[in-house]
Formats: sequence, structure tokens, C-alpha cells
Amino acid sequence: MPNIKDFNILPWILILLCPYTVELTSQDQHIVEEFNIVKQWNKGDKLYPPNWEALDKRPLPVWYDSAKIGIFVVWGVYSVPSVYDEWFWCFWKEKKIPKYVEFMKKNYRPGFTYPDFAPMLTAEFLDTDEWASLFKSSGAEYVVFTTKHHEGFTMWPSNHSFNWNSMAVGPKRDIVGELVTSLRKKDLRVGLYHSLFEWFNPLFLQDKANNFTTQEFVTTKTMPELYELVNNYKPDLIWSDGSPAPSSYWNSTEFLAWLYNYSPVRDEIVTNDRWGTDTMCKHGGFLTCSDRFNPGKLQKKKWENAMTIDKVSWGFRRNAKLDEFLTIEELIASIVSTISCGGNILINVAPSYDGTIQPLFQERLKQMGSWLQVNSEAIYGSFPWKHQNDTSTPRVWYTEQQIKTNKAVYAITLNWPDKYLYLKSPIPVQDQTFVYFLGTEGQLEWTSPPQGGINITLPYIPYNKMPCHWAWVFRLEGLQNG
Amino acid sequence: MPNIKDFNILPWILILLCPYTVELTSQDQHIVEEFNIVKQWNKGDKLYPPNWEALDKRPLPVWYDSAKIGIFVVWGVYSVPSVYDEWFWCFWKEKKIPKYVEFMKKNYRPGFTYPDFAPMLTAEFLDTDEWASLFKSSGAEYVVFTTKHHEGFTMWPSNHSFNWNSMAVGPKRDIVGELVTSLRKKDLRVGLYHSLFEWFNPLFLQDKANNFTTQEFVTTKTMPELYELVNNYKPDLIWSDGSPAPSSYWNSTEFLAWLYNYSPVRDEIVTNDRWGTDTMCKHGGFLTCSDRFNPGKLQKKKWENAMTIDKVSWGFRRNAKLDEFLTIEELIASIVSTISCGGNILINVAPSYDGTIQPLFQERLKQMGSWLQVNSEAIYGSFPWKHQNDTSTPRVWYTEQQIKTNKAVYAITLNWPDKYLYLKSPIPVQDQTFVYFLGTEGQLEWTSPPQGGINITLPYIPYNKMPCHWAWVFRLEGLQNG
Amino acid sequence: MPNIKDFNILPWILILLCPYTVELTSQDQHIVEEFNIVKQWNKGDKLYPPNWEALDKRPLPVWYDSAKIGIFVVWGVYSVPSVYDEWFWCFWKEKKIPKYVEFMKKNYRPGFTYPDFAPMLTAEFLDTDEWASLFKSSGAEYVVFTTKHHEGFTMWPSNHSFNWNSMAVGPKRDIVGELVTSLRKKDLRVGLYHSLFEWFNPLFLQDKANNFTTQEFVTTKTMPELYELVNNYKPDLIWSDGSPAPSSYWNSTEFLAWLYNYSPVRDEIVTNDRWGTDTMCKHGGFLTCSDRFNPGKLQKKKWENAMTIDKVSWGFRRNAKLDEFLTIEELIASIVSTISCGGNILINVAPSYDGTIQPLFQERLKQMGSWLQVNSEAIYGSFPWKHQNDTSTPRVWYTEQQIKTNKAVYAITLNWPDKYLYLKSPIPVQDQTFVYFLGTEGQLEWTSPPQGGINITLPYIPYNKMPCHWAWVFRLEGLQNG
Amino acid sequence: MPNIKDFNILPWILILLCPYTVELTSQDQHIVEEFNIVKQWNKGDKLYPPNWEALDKRPLPVWYDSAKIGIFVVWGVYSVPSVYDEWFWCFWKEKKIPKYVEFMKKNYRPGFTYPDFAPMLTAEFLDTDEWASLFKSSGAEYVVFTTKHHEGFTMWPSNHSFNWNSMAVGPKRDIVGELVTSLRKKDLRVGLYHSLFEWFNPLFLQDKANNFTTQEFVTTKTMPELYELVNNYKPDLIWSDGSPAPSSYWNSTEFLAWLYNYSPVRDEIVTNDRWGTDTMCKHGGFLTCSDRFNPGKLQKKKWENAMTIDKVSWGFRRNAKLDEFLTIEELIASIVSTISCGGNILINVAPSYDGTIQPLFQERLKQMGSWLQVNSEAIYGSFPWKHQNDTSTPRVWYTEQQIKTNKAVYAITLNWPDKYLYLKSPIPVQDQTFVYFLGTEGQLEWTSPPQGGINITLPYIPYNKMPCHWAWVFRLEGLQNG
Repeated sequence: MPNIKDFNILPWILILLCPYTVELTSQDQHIVEEFNIVKQWNKGDKLYPPNWEALDKRPLPVWYDSAKIGIFVVWGVYSVPSVYDEWFWCFWKEKKIPKYVEFMKKNYRPGFTYPDFAPMLTAEFLDTDEWASLFKSSGAEYVVFTTKHHEGFTMWPSNHSFNWNSMAVGPKRDIVGELVTSLRKKDLRVGLYHSLFEWFNPLFLQDKANNFTTQEFVTTKTMPELYELVNNYKPDLIWSDGSPAPSSYWNSTEFLAWLYNYSPVRDEIVTNDRWGTDTMCKHGGFLTCSDRFNPGKLQKKKWENAMTIDKVSWGFRRNAKLDEFLTIEELIASIVSTISCGGNILINVAPSYDGTIQPLFQERLKQMGSWLQVNSEAIYGSFPWKHQNDTSTPRVWYTEQQIKTNKAVYAITLNWPDKYLYLKSPIPVQDQTFVYFLGTEGQLEWTSPPQGGINITLPYIPYNKMPCHWAWVFRLEGLQNG
Repeated sequence: MPNIKDFNILPWILILLCPYTVELTSQDQHIVEEFNIVKQWNKGDKLYPPNWEALDKRPLPVWYDSAKIGIFVVWGVYSVPSVYDEWFWCFWKEKKIPKYVEFMKKNYRPGFTYPDFAPMLTAEFLDTDEWASLFKSSGAEYVVFTTKHHEGFTMWPSNHSFNWNSMAVGPKRDIVGELVTSLRKKDLRVGLYHSLFEWFNPLFLQDKANNFTTQEFVTTKTMPELYELVNNYKPDLIWSDGSPAPSSYWNSTEFLAWLYNYSPVRDEIVTNDRWGTDTMCKHGGFLTCSDRFNPGKLQKKKWENAMTIDKVSWGFRRNAKLDEFLTIEELIASIVSTISCGGNILINVAPSYDGTIQPLFQERLKQMGSWLQVNSEAIYGSFPWKHQNDTSTPRVWYTEQQIKTNKAVYAITLNWPDKYLYLKSPIPVQDQTFVYFLGTEGQLEWTSPPQGGINITLPYIPYNKMPCHWAWVFRLEGLQNG
Repeated sequence: MPNIKDFNILPWILILLCPYTVELTSQDQHIVEEFNIVKQWNKGDKLYPPNWEALDKRPLPVWYDSAKIGIFVVWGVYSVPSVYDEWFWCFWKEKKIPKYVEFMKKNYRPGFTYPDFAPMLTAEFLDTDEWASLFKSSGAEYVVFTTKHHEGFTMWPSNHSFNWNSMAVGPKRDIVGELVTSLRKKDLRVGLYHSLFEWFNPLFLQDKANNFTTQEFVTTKTMPELYELVNNYKPDLIWSDGSPAPSSYWNSTEFLAWLYNYSPVRDEIVTNDRWGTDTMCKHGGFLTCSDRFNPGKLQKKKWENAMTIDKVSWGFRRNAKLDEFLTIEELIASIVSTISCGGNILINVAPSYDGTIQPLFQERLKQMGSWLQVNSEAIYGSFPWKHQNDTSTPRVWYTEQQIKTNKAVYAITLNWPDKYLYLKSPIPVQDQTFVYFLGTEGQLEWTSPPQGGINITLPYIPYNKMPCHWAWVFRLEGLQNG
Repeated sequence: MPNIKDFNILPWILILLCPYTVELTSQDQHIVEEFNIVKQWNKGDKLYPPNWEALDKRPLPVWYDSAKIGIFVVWGVYSVPSVYDEWFWCFWKEKKIPKYVEFMKKNYRPGFTYPDFAPMLTAEFLDTDEWASLFKSSGAEYVVFTTKHHEGFTMWPSNHSFNWNSMAVGPKRDIVGELVTSLRKKDLRVGLYHSLFEWFNPLFLQDKANNFTTQEFVTTKTMPELYELVNNYKPDLIWSDGSPAPSSYWNSTEFLAWLYNYSPVRDEIVTNDRWGTDTMCKHGGFLTCSDRFNPGKLQKKKWENAMTIDKVSWGFRRNAKLDEFLTIEELIASIVSTISCGGNILINVAPSYDGTIQPLFQERLKQMGSWLQVNSEAIYGSFPWKHQNDTSTPRVWYTEQQIKTNKAVYAITLNWPDKYLYLKSPIPVQDQTFVYFLGTEGQLEWTSPPQGGINITLPYIPYNKMPCHWAWVFRLEGLQNG
């Protein structure tokens, strides 16, 4: 039975029934376009109809797979308490987890509410150009920003979030707008994270109480916002999240059909798989599956490992301790293993309430950047090789690159191999196989041992001549099974 | 051309077109009922159709005219800065009136926003039972409370005002709910003030930019709130305000039709005339015309003089000076002149951010109560007499009361008349006309002077025997023209 | 045994012992002058030595007795919480009285301290010229201001209260300086309240723990402040308070000897009796005895009734209710009864944290001023008569005034006497005794009844011709016992 | 001419003049003891008289020179704004440096004062045990903490800093007490930084206006505090600072005489040279000379290089950027060059307002600790060698250690030497000189080249076998000139 409040069905009803032409105001643009979808199906055009089967067939725009590395900036009102994690509000007020409740009780007046934190998101040091420079220097090629997390606070002046947005309270700035401009100046691709649901929005809670048979929240709040985001900021990537309801509730396929067919970004836009309880790891664009998803083996579809440098939280934690952060060795290992298995990696950094990114995050990003500068050819634009990691030597990962008409295979070792690096998976061919150590001159000698594979002889490189630290890359050309 | 977002037309569309039965969720109750209106019109029932001609014919529920005196409680986020007046946000940010801008510049950090005031609406001393007792002691019979002023902050936990309501920030209480309960305990009628528009709501501003040809604000925000208010709190009076748009934009007639036909308060509900730019002083319930409307002569329709004890502001002003308040003499004069001319008077008091009502307001209310206790019979349930004020002696006002089968006329003089009170308008009849001084025993002597009228001889009443101060009432029975 | 840290004894030691001339820096001025006292005693000059016997003999400067009515302005950091009373800090933290503890617990974050209130003493509306006008209009002739209450916060930029004064935090203004200037412009005498002790000053607590055998607090904190106050602001009155220690601990007599002998205000300065546990109601200037002291009979020494309009508190209370304030009738009764018995009355009003004086205080002060304007001759410069109140008719109080060579007796009745005012105490003399009703023209008739006294016939004065409300004054000239 | 307020001379005056015995209260203990100094001089005891000639002769307690490395924790109210540096108050309000003034103007309300920051020093995450563990893990052997910086805010509940201390506002904790306890649990020596002067203390400003001919600030504020600190917390080191006045003004020699002769810490206490404008780099304990003093050559007296990891500031800066911090290579270079020249190094870390030490500081401290673990024998308890750095090879520094009856010389190279490390300064002896590489097994081969010195052959150590990073140490035993 149709719900008359579900205006998404209206165009169809109207088209069938109305003898007169429907004139729509500009606000209804997205409806118009859904409407047009219907019309054009009839004409047989190649448009994506709003169903998963069709939408899933859309090829992923190529920039995304090539980019490999993104930075995930998680910033919102939770960056004010900046304790425990960005689920602060929910864990405090809904789940009533004792440590959250205690923290508030000890440090704030009774009756202090989560919205009371918003004015303290001062952002006085925020300089999105500096952010963009820092992200660029890390070697990342795209940046995903939390335009709205589950708290519902929009980091842009949305028409649909009166007095609960970054222009009305707190920063008093269009954070999304500023960041997008800065990223583009640095040739970084723009990703916008958006949470479909909001923990405490009464309209959402009401729809939920109705077992998602009503859609007042979807039609008056979250979808209008998402259209607004796309139309205003023209992102390269929509990173949807927060979907404790089926995609049919969210009208996700309608949105994606519009996004792919009619939106101003239809050609380049990339999305993920978080569009409803039924879509995770299944439908949409690239797969994210679970947080910190790093399966260690090749996946059938393009995927992304969204992970954090602060191992505990996506949002800033004032009281994070050093040993809760990834070491640079661990971070490089995550990057390498993810890319070898066909994933992109989305590395989280968490700004402070005042718009700064604390020095340890800067240090990790710059360390990462220095490593990538030496080893870029093994990463950007690479493909998974037939083997993801070596069948014999542990902690060696492979990528492959097309160089003109030839292929090169890259063996990336996370352990310095001392004198010889033995690799079981590549099969060398005498006089055709050449081995190079990225960051150094000349070829390396190798032998083909009885048990198969290749045994590379490492030259003596004194400490001060090492091309990089933390992981080392060997390019193998002319392999038999290249 | 119908706007498809105007869901009020949907029922009609559907009824015409759908072959199947429409099943509606509970949220759609008000739509259902409008829907039923249509059906029942067809059946010829006596229902108010949604047009002014019909709605204006509804008789005003009798309690209202009899009550005469209400208290108007104006309380919201503006009660935090509590300077100048309750239009603070608009005059500061939209009109940029220098004194508002300067006040903020001198006393708050740069970038402080109006929503930042909301957490400071602490209400720690709010005791609505105490408020109700105070209002009762003033002699008022109804109380009107600002459930939402033009700032859009709802003083109840509305589903349609996420994080901008009294439960989410500031008081963390359902102020409307608490007050309604307290008023009912004291047998005071409950009036709910509600502003249709909101200065800075982006949806309203968008509709406005579209010359009110769109109604996104009406259908997703202000009307859902108003239905919610009525359904939740079952008021006796809706005091609508803030309507810089035609009533057709607001869907006012649809709301009133529902209110009069189907709402849970359809029998007793009273409304005013502020339902659109085209309705003020014309359509709806009683007329308010302009703020502090006190025309000094009889009006054709029931009207109300909404006025303030603080002559400058409806909202609390911390820095109000004594001479900016009405003296008790001025207040009594306002009451008397209003009621003589057929009006009700709605007397504003302005609570502080902490829920207190400052002692000077208490003093005026209690002074007023002491006067009304002596002179109640001239006020409550009274009617305008044929003359509103005396044609000869200034500052004498009349009311009339039906006492069983007889009429009594009350001459209320704002000046103490020394030895004789001469009244031109009443025509006495020898042996039939009796004159009484309220608060004292016995009849007063009078003569009928040549120029007509009646000359009442005042007895010698020493200071300590005076029945009341500020104004004095004489009951005249058996007048020729009574 | 002298304590060598008690530098007040040093001059004497040095004078006896040092063969060379002592050169002192300007800071030591007060020591120099005490020093000179010693010298000059030897010369036989008429200087007050630092002992009570001598100091008590100093005649009270005449302005004080003549002034009769003062306003007591109690304002400090306690005006920020403004709940319960000005002992807030002590009752919360030292006495731990539950309602204070609860209030803080419910409304402030854990760990909120009393000093945290100080920045909120914003004083943004403070206009001391307005204050002075208001006080002047009340008929008061002097004003006493709390320069430092027991909390230790100085309302002037004292050198001895680093970061705990009104210039460093909160108002950022020299409140004492501004007020003194404004009062002088209006010809109001300047009184400075100063608390000797401070509840929580660690130096005081340390001296106290030493049973006041040490004086570190006195010599480095409270006395330097008091000298500073006198030298900077040249007050007409020092209203000392807060002395849970003997005057010998406080060095009170040394201070008073300096004040009376050498200070810049030695001629006109008036003080009270709160200079140590041993002095209350006994030594010093006028007696205050206890708060709200109103003995109802003549006292041997000049005294003052320091009382409050808010019956509950000296400091501002946001949540005060109307019935906790004195009515104007009660206030006039207090004034009259106090002055009849030879006292001055010091009437407390309590400003808010923002520098406003709330309208009810304004109303009482202006009501009082209107009464005094009619009846001033019975009050200012008057003396107690031989009878303070009438021996027969209750609520009649007397004062006496010298008019040229004659005496007039004033009978002040708090009840309006209806037709006759019978007074037992005055003995009239036929043809010599004349009776007048202040605020009206002409003499009143009287008779001498058999039981003695005088029976005054009141004329018929209609309500609108009454010269004043609340109390009425009759001047009796030519009495036998005048 | 003596100033009678200078109570330090009183004992001598009294002893000479008073025939009776002086009985002193406990508060005067330090005076008593100075007093005793005088007496005991007469007896010929070996006590330090209060003059620099004598005090400078006191041998430095041995623990200090042996410890080499300290951590300097700079924390106070300036850690709340945490912008620019810890001189924030002075540069904002006294020097009015535009960037400070602008920062306040842009981010705080007009009239916001420096003391208003104090309540925000919340310290909610402060765990001094964690701090102590972190400092211990860095390899430091002592910790110096700012008990009071020039702002005058005492980080302990001083009797002499009413309402301007860490117990009264902000943390509400005895920070000094907690930290001292934690440090002792970890066997870390306790140093207490104390600023003699206070920028804005009116008593100091008054003394200064008097050209330091008065000492009210010294005798009532700063010296009582210093005695209190020593008596309460029994530190191992007093790190005095902030002395824009001669030591005679400060009574510094009197304090040091007491400290060395009578204080509870007289045996182990170490102090520095900042006791007056005349003492810097000249008198007192070890020399500090200037901030970040690192002369690069041997000094005649024990000295200390107090320096910062954040190159810009001693106090926390929220907006510090990574390139403003020392790299670990730079930090190790500072440590090594300082110790080689006979200095100790005091390495600053700056906690945040909430008591956390941000991860980058943690990273540097732990990196440092890992290096010291390998190379400790070259550092702790070492002495400068005859050469501080190599006369030929740059960036090689020497230390010397007594090992039983033999000496070892340590060559510390900041550059990895590739295959040979040539050192000009050491003169090897065939068959007697042995060379070791710290962190590895076995001796290294060397030759004696014609131009003199020693040429050490480095073994091939693959990257993964390197004992440490950033700097490498070679122990040379049996040198001719060892």
C-alpha cells in the first residue's frame, strides 16, 4: 500500500493520472528528475533505473581505483568533548555506557546537553588551505570529509538543519565549502561523508517507531540535505553511512539513479555501499563492508579499507596515548597490504575542536608522504598481481603496473631482508628478468634456486644511503608469469 | 496549478483517483480529518469548510468573553539577553539596529550567535505551580503562553524542531506541558501563543524568496507543530501571531477547519485574527488588530487588548527602569477602559531566564487582584453598556451586568470624586434608581440635576475605611435607560 | 612579648633604641604617623591615643546624626549566584548547609568554585550616576557601599588583593571610585563598608589557627587595604564589619587613632562599633549592635538600624518573592520608629550582577522619597523627644526639632486616625499650643480631655486631597513639656 | 639606612638591642634560622653566610651532574589560551603585541581578563603517575615543574596566593604535591621552578616603581612562598627564574643561606643562577645563562641547557606545526653536544590545559629513551673529555667515563660514517686500544693513519641489525691520551 506522504511515488501517480502538465518549483528539481527517469525509461534511453541490479552495473569512474590513498577527516561536535570517540552522544545518552556518563557527570554541570557543545566547536585555527597542503604532502589523492555525522550537525549551512549547522553555531563558517575549495586548489579529489540516519532526530525516531513504514525523516530531512550537498559542492565521491534501515526506506536507489543520470557530477561521481541494511558489502559503488576492512586477499569488487591512525577512534581524542596510534611501520603495512589486495585505503585523521590537526597526525602523514615519494610507481595506478603476497617469505606484498607495453611486478617487503630476498611467487627468466631496488641506481643480481622462485642479492647499503625506511620495494621486470 | 508538495490537496486527488482504500498511519491523522471534511461536506453535515466566510461565522465560545482578563507570559531565548525586547535576534542580525549590535559587541565574544543563548535559558527556579498561583491571585481567568516565538524555539519537545527546543537545550523541560498542568489545577484557561513564521528559518526564507508560491516551511515545520500543540496540550485558546504572508500560504483556513470540526478542543477553542496578512482585524476569532489595541469605543466584534506592564517590551528586560512600567493606576485604567468597550485585556508579564517573575510584576498583579476582589461584579461576565464612558465627567467608564432579571450599570471612576460624582449618561428614575458604592454598605443618596443625569453624594469615608484604591465603582440599579 | 612581625610596635622600639634618624618610605606613611602619635603624646597634644577609652570620647561629627537615613548597597561576587544570601560561599563550603550545597550541585559543574563566579559579575548596566540619582530621590543623605565583604573581593583595584578585585576580574572597573564620584555629585555622604576578616583567606585562617597570636593577615592584607581605602577615596564613614577576633588582633585602635588624628578625613569621618569581638555595641563610633537592631527605645549612644527591604537577605536574591519584601507601610514604620529612638536607619538595597537595581527596590525608594518630601521637617536634623512613642495611642512615634528658638514636637502616626487623634504624652497649653498637619494648610483644632494629653480633631480630607500615604505627621508647637 | 619593613634585618637589630629573649612564633621559623646563622658565625661553625662569595663555594651535590638529563614541565594558566607562548599575559596586556591583542579580540568577549582563563585549566585528565612513567621512559633522571610562573598562579595551595592558585580555581588540586609524589615513586629527582617576580602583582609593581628600595612584594609574597615550597615539598632542585631586580632586593642570599644551612633539603638541594639581575651566569648553583644556552665548548662551572622540543615556546601551543618541533635527530644532537661540554640538558615538554601531554611529545620522549637505553654508559655519570668534539670529523662529540680504574672515551657521531670513522683527537696505542660499537658485540678493527688519530673500520651492519638510530657511540679504551 502506498503511503501518501511518500512523495517519491507522486510523479508516477501524476503521470498516469493527470491530463494537464505538471509545473514544478525549483525546490522540486530532484523530483522532476526522478520523474524524467520514468519518462526516459519509456523512451529506452540508457539511464540507470532506481534498482540495485541496474545501479550495480555502473562502472566505477577510473580516477578512484588509480588514486589508491585517501584521507578521511572526521570532524564535528564530538570533536569538542573529544573523549572516547565520535559516538559520544549515543553512548552517553542512548546506551548510557558508564564511562561516558561518568565523564559528563564529573566535568559538566547537570543538564548540560550535547547541543551545548556546539558553540565550543570554535575552529579558530582552521585553515583549510593548510589542511589541503598537509593531505597533499601525505601522498593521498582524495579526501573524504564528514559533512554530517550521526549527530545530525551539518558542517555546511543546510536549509534543512536550522540552528544545528556550522554556520549558525560554533564555527560560523561553511566548513564544507571552504574545504572543497582548498582541496581543489591542490588537485585533491573531494569526497563527502554523509550519515543517512541521525541518532536523536525525532522524525527519524518516529519513522523507526513505525518500523520504517513512514518516511517523514527521509523526505523532509536527510534526502533534501543530500541533494543539497551534491548540488552545492559537486563532490567526486559520496561516502554514505549510517543506515539502520533498508534502502527502500531511504529512497537510496532513487537518489543514486538521480546521481548517476542527472546530477551535475554524474560522470565522475563515486559512491560506496552504505545505502541501507541490505546494501553493505553488496550494492552501490565500491565496497566498505566493515570499518577497518582489510581482508588480506583479493576481492571481486573494488573495495576500500577505511581505517584510523588513532587505533581507537575516528574522532579526535584529547587523551589519546602514543601507543594507541599506529606506528609508521604499521601504517605502511596497512597501505601496502590493502593496495596489494585491490583495495583503496582511506586513512583517518581527526582534527581538534579548534581546527588544528595535532602534530602526531602531521608526523605520520609526512612520514607516509616521504615513503610514497620514493615508491610511488608501485602504488598509484597499480593493479593487484596474481599473487597478493609471497607464498614463502612472509610480509612481502605484490602489486603490478603496466609500463607502456610491459608489465612490472613490485615486491614490497615490510622486513629488511638482510643479504638476500627470496621470493617464491615470481618465476624469473634468465637474461630477461631484471630486478631493481626503488630509490637506488642499477640492477640487482639474482639467482634461481632449486626450489623455484627468485633469490635477489642485496647490495651493501650503509644506513645513510638507504632510500627509505619502514618498507622497501623491488621492481621485477620480465618475469615469466609477469 | 496544484503544487504537489502541498499535501493538503492530496486527499482530494486520491479520493478521486484511487480505486483502493487509503490506509493512513497515525501521523497522518490531521490529513485524514481534512479528508473526512471533504467527505462530510458531501453528506451535508454542519461542518466549517476551510474558507473565511464560513469560519468567521462560528460563534465565540462563551467562556472567553466572560473571562475578561488574561495574563500573557512571553518567555523564550530572548529572555536570556533580556535587553531591549523580544525582537532581539531580528533587530540585531537582520535589521542591524545599532544599539543591538553594540550591545552584543561590547558584551559577548565575536561570533557569539543567538542560538548560543539557548543553553543559558536555565529555568532553575521555574515552578509553574507558583506561576499559576500568582496569575490566579491577579484575578485573571486565562493565561496565554508563548510556545514558540518568531525565533522558532519551541518551549515543548516538538518533533519538528530538532535541537531547537526547551527539552534539548536550556531548560531541558517541557515548559508548555508543565505550565498547562499547573494552570488547569488552578482553573485557569490555557492559551497557547504560536508564531507562524520564524525570522531565520531557511525554509521560511526560501518560501519567502519564492514569493510564498512554495510552502515547504508550512508543510514540514510550522503546521505540523501547530497540530502537535493542539493534540498534545488541548488548549482553550490559540493565539496565533507572526504572519507576513497571506493566509493561503499558511493553510490557515484548513487548520481552523480542522480545529473547529475535528480537533479534540473543537467545542471550547478560541482563536484570534492573526492568520495571515489578509486576516488581521478581520478574520478568525476575536480581533487583536494591533499590539496594545485599545480603541476607546465599542467594536463590532469581540476584541482583545494585548498590552504590557513594562511599557517598552513583551520580553523581560533586565535593565528596565521603574518609570517604564505602568503604575497600578495606569494598569487599572487600561483594564477598565478596555472592558467598557467590549474588549478582553491580555496583560503581559515577562519571566526572567531563570524562571522567576520579578517582584515588581508580582506587585502589580497582586495590586490588580486586590482591586478586582472588591469590584469583581463590574468586570467578570459584564457587557458593554450603551455608553462606554460618561459624556460629561471624564475618566468614568461603564459596564453592565445582568443580575437575575435586572440590569445593573457600573460607573467606574478613575478619579476620586471628592464630594459628588456627577454622571451625565445615566438617567435615574425617582424611587426606582438605587446607587451603591462597591466595597461599602448601604445605598448612596443622589439627586437629579436640571441638566440631566445623576449627581451622587459621596459619604465621608476616612482614608482607612476606603474599600479600595486607584478606581472606584458605583452600581446603579433601576435606571431609566439601564 | 612583642611579635617581631607586628610592625606596628617597631616605631616605638626604634625610637627608643636607635641613635640615628629613621627615614621611611612613603609606603610607611601610616606607620610614620602612628609613630608621630607617640611623639606628640609626649608633647601633650590633644591626639587620640590608640585605646578605646580615649577613642570613645571623640564626638561624632554632626553631619551623621542629622542625616538620619542612609542607603546600604551590598554588592559583590555573591550577587552572581544571587541565591539565599550574601553568605553564600561560607554556607556552601564551610558550613555545608544542604540547600546551598544542593543548589550548586544541581546547577553547576562539579568543581565549580566560588572564585569562578567572579568573571560573571559583569556590571554591564552599571551607571553609578543613575544609582546616585535613585538614592537621592529616596531622601537618603548618605550611602554605604560594600568595598569588600567577607569573601575578600575588593570592589576597587587594591594593591593587596591580586586578581581578586573588581578591576582584575568581572567588572574591570573601579566600582568604589566610580560610585564615590557619583555620590559626591549628588551631595550624598560616602560610607565605605569593609569586612575585617575574610572567610577563606589562608592567612586569616592561619592566624586563627594560632588563636590570633599571629597577625600576618592583619599586617599584610586587611589593614593595608583599609588605609588604602581611606587614602584613596576619603570617605565620610567607615562601616567596619566582620570581626571574629578581638580588636587587639585587628590593630583597630591603632587604625582609629590614625584615622582620627592624621588621616585626610580626620574631621568628618564617622565609624561604627564593629572593630573586634570586644567592641560591638560598646566601642568605636555609632553603635550597630546587631543586624536590624531596632530597640524601640532611646539608647545612650548614637546608634544605627542597618536593615533590609528584602527581609531575608542583604545581597541580591533572584528568586525573592514579593511577600519577602517590606511593604512601604512596614518600611515607613521602621524609619519612623528608628529615628524616634535616636537611631539612624541604613536601608539595604541589593544590585544585581549586571549593575541594575531591580524595579521593586526602585519603587520602595521612590515611595519613601515621596513621603519624606512631605514630612522632611520631622526627620532630618530632628532629635528624640522625651517620649519616643505615645503612652496611650499605639503606633504613634515622636521626634523633636529646634525651630529657631522654639521647639516643635512631631507626632507621627502609622494608623490613619479617622476623626480624632488622641495623644497622651504631649501636654498642651491653651492658646499657646498649635497643631499642624504636615502637607496641609492651617491649624487643627484640639481639646484637652480630662484624662490629660491632647485630642486633635482631624478635618475631612477626601482621598484625593491626602498629603501623603502610609504615615502622617502632626507638628505640635508650644507644648508645656515641649 | 635600613628599611624597617625589611624584617630580615630585624633579628640582628633585636639581638643587639633587646635585653629580653625574643620568642618567635612558628611562622617565623625562617627568620629564626637566619638569626641562628648570625649566632653560629660567631661560634665559627661552617655555615654559609648570606653572601655570594661564600654561597658560590658550596659544592654542587653530586646527583645533579650525574643525572645529565631532566624534563622541564611548563604548565600554568597560559596553557589555557595555549597560543604563541607562556608569556601570553605580558605580551597581550603589557607589551600589547598586536598578534596577542588580535587573538583575544577575535576569540573572546570584550573585557575577558587573563584570570578568567584560570577556571578553564581543568586538568581533568591529569594523572601524574602517567607523567612520571613517561618521563622515566625518556631516560631523564630529574623533572623540573613550574610551581609558579611569572603570572603568579601557584600550582599548589599557597597561603600567599589567595584565590590565585590551583586549589582555589581551575584544577582544584595540589598539582605540585601530586607530581612530587609520583616522581618519587619512579625515583626521579624533583625540581621546582619558581618565578621570583610576577608581571602584574601590584605589590611588585609598587616596589619596582620605588626602584626596588621597598620590598613589600618580597617579604609578603614571593619569599614566603619559596620557603613554603621548600618546607612542604622538600625538592632536590630549586629552579629560580624571573628576576628583573638585583638579588639584594630579593633577599636571595638570605634564602640560599637558609636553604644550604638549615632547610630540610640542605644536603641534596641544587639551585641555579637566576637569583637577581646580578647573578645570571655568575652566582648560585649551576649556570643557566640564557634560555637554550648551548655554548658548544666546555664551561668552567657546571651548567644546564634548558631547551624546548617545541622550538617556539615553553608553554603548550595548540596550533604548533610539526616543523616547529625538533626532529628526534635534532633532539639527540642537542643532548649529545650539551653533555659533551659538561652541561646538563633540561628538555621542555608542555602539557595541555586538560593535563594531557600530546602524542608528539610522547613520541620524542620515547624515541629519546630508546636511544639512551642503548647508549646510557656514554651519558649518565660521564665527564667531559679533554676534547669536546673531534678536531677533524664534524658532528662527533666526546664524553669520558671512569670504569673501575680505567677511563673510557666515547665518540658519539651524529652522522652514520659509512665504512670508516676517522677520529683525529684520540691517540690510539697499538695492542692497548680497543674499540667497541655500543649495542653490538665484539671489538672493531682500527688503524692509525699517518696524519694521526684513529681510523675505525665499521663492520657491515644491515639495516635491521642497527643497534639504534640517529646517533651512534663508539667506546675507545686504552687511548694514549685517555
